[in-house]
Amino acid sequence: MSKTHIEISEVGPRDGLQSITPIMSTADKKAWIAAEAAAGVREIEVGSFVPARILPQLADTAELVAFARTIPGLTVAVLVPNFKGAAAAVEAGAHKITIPLSVSETHSLRNVNRTHAQMLEETARIAELIMGRPEAERPKFEGGLSTAFGCTLEGAIPDATLLRLAEGLMAAGCDEVGLSDTTGYANPAQVKRLIRLVRGAVGEAAVTGVHLHNTRGLGLANVLAALDEGIVTVDASLGGIGGCPFAPGASGNIVTEDLAFMLEAMGYETGVDLEALIAVRQQVQAALPAVELYGFTPESGLPLGFAQGQGWGASV
Amino acid sequence: MSKTHIEISEVGPRDGLQSITPIMSTADKKAWIAAEAAAGVREIEVGSFVPARILPQLADTAELVAFARTIPGLTVAVLVPNFKGAAAAVEAGAHKITIPLSVSETHSLRNVNRTHAQMLEETARIAELIMGRPEAERPKFEGGLSTAFGCTLEGAIPDATLLRLAEGLMAAGCDEVGLSDTTGYANPAQVKRLIRLVRGAVGEAAVTGVHLHNTRGLGLANVLAALDEGIVTVDASLGGIGGCPFAPGASGNIVTEDLAFMLEAMGYETGVDLEALIAVRQQVQAALPAVELYGFTPESGLPLGFAQGQGWGASV
Repeated sequence: MSKTHIEISEVGPRDGLQSITPIMSTADKKAWIAAEAAAGVREIEVGSFVPARILPQLADTAELVAFARTIPGLTVAVLVPNFKGAAAAVEAGAHKITIPLSVSETHSLRNVNRTHAQMLEETARIAELIMGRPEAERPKFEGGLSTAFGCTLEGAIPDATLLRLAEGLMAAGCDEVGLSDTTGYANPAQVKRLIRLVRGAVGEAAVTGVHLHNTRGLGLANVLAALDEGIVTVDASLGGIGGCPFAPGASGNIVTEDLAFMLEAMGYETGVDLEALIAVRQQVQAALPAVELYGFTPESGLPLGFAQGQGWGASV
Repeated sequence: MSKTHIEISEVGPRDGLQSITPIMSTADKKAWIAAEAAAGVREIEVGSFVPARILPQLADTAELVAFARTIPGLTVAVLVPNFKGAAAAVEAGAHKITIPLSVSETHSLRNVNRTHAQMLEETARIAELIMGRPEAERPKFEGGLSTAFGCTLEGAIPDATLLRLAEGLMAAGCDEVGLSDTTGYANPAQVKRLIRLVRGAVGEAAVTGVHLHNTRGLGLANVLAALDEGIVTVDASLGGIGGCPFAPGASGNIVTEDLAFMLEAMGYETGVDLEALIAVRQQVQAALPAVELYGFTPESGLPLGFAQGQGWGASV
């Protein structure tokens, strides 16, 4: 019986490092990316193409893309806030580019100083840029629907707004849209409902990934709900570092270590070696001694007799 | 459309307090129980009838049962390790009595110094005692299948052992059996599988509750899996205090606050007022200043615009 593969997309080097004060050296970032790829993580968001004056923590993104591209089998992902960032990302050779579009317009203005209309226009320009490249050099282009589950500034977001923007991103030329729980407001029932809703508008194949937070402790329960809907790519951050620095009170990515344990224990195939992943955590902690890491599995260890790739608790 | 009621069974005064060094005063315990009942929690495990030399933290259980019985609508639950404890519990007037039976015999010997056969015999004696009381005074009698998802001493537990003991408990006269993840080894796929498996042996009506831990961060995901199977009673501990002091490395009850938030946000009816519950947490923290409380929702607060009883993220 073949296992279902779930892609763990590590966003720590981007979403994690942008949210903390200490600036990790480029050498430490490369060591992190290399070690986590060696532990079996096959997609890593290595940075964001934003001006260094806004996020000095991520100023070396181009160099990290170039480095990460040398790792066989690794999908090198980046975030871009606008056309200029996307041009730099394409130039650097990123495999996957995500532009966040906040479903809350208030948050969009606060985060990138742009309206919905401006963001969709920017998205269309980026898509045009990508389509102008030779086919082999075109990165996958994803629109990330931020604050999809609610906003700390606006509260609940109407379905109609979410659908209009999902359709707008696809019409502008995105290959996919992803649902992002920027604020940690999501619950499992809502995750299921919104995945179905958005898929109903843009098609099942256009919604394969989620970016969920653990702000209220529901992160993995929300992942479970997404898996039930057939989602196959789940973002997480090593040690749970990060969140969104522009949404007050919205911290706490899903912890990669706990996510990988859950998926492997359930019998999904992630490609990730748990012991090796926990060693990467120690490496990152050593590089960021002042930063508090989250997660339970690294503290408690793996169950007695747990064997990589065997799952846990299937019939014995 | 009527909502599904999910019973949150607060086990902090028992499972929480037995696991920590400070001994909470009887007055503080009464205040906790009263406040949490007032916040809408309708079942509270107030203590355990064990010798005071073993768990001095719980020496006042009889007094707490008497007190808690005065609170209208509250189900007063207790744990009992043996016949003697059960006799005291019945005498005190507990509404619900749980005897834990560790599916791992090694853990059973370590925890209560009894084999499986001895525990089943003890269970039968307790059932006989209960049936000897007038019908109105008979507490509900539950067998708790501890370490059902694996043991820190034995590792994986064979299905056959779990089934034999579930059937043994029911044959001995229990009204129900509950699955307990004493060690925090459970994952959502396993939770679903074992609920189905045990129900297949003892009937659906005999398996309505779960006791899950958050040791590896999967607590709420495991709850979600249990809800999918139709489980209607979920144990949790305010502030996540406690776990099992006799299973090394097995700490971390599910946090009542996060569980209540998840259930209410999903549109379940719990009867719990979230703001009031968070106030109880502050009260317990004040009574236990040296004890670290867990949980995310109390730190991050409720979503902007969240209204009690309205759920979150249903169609807008």
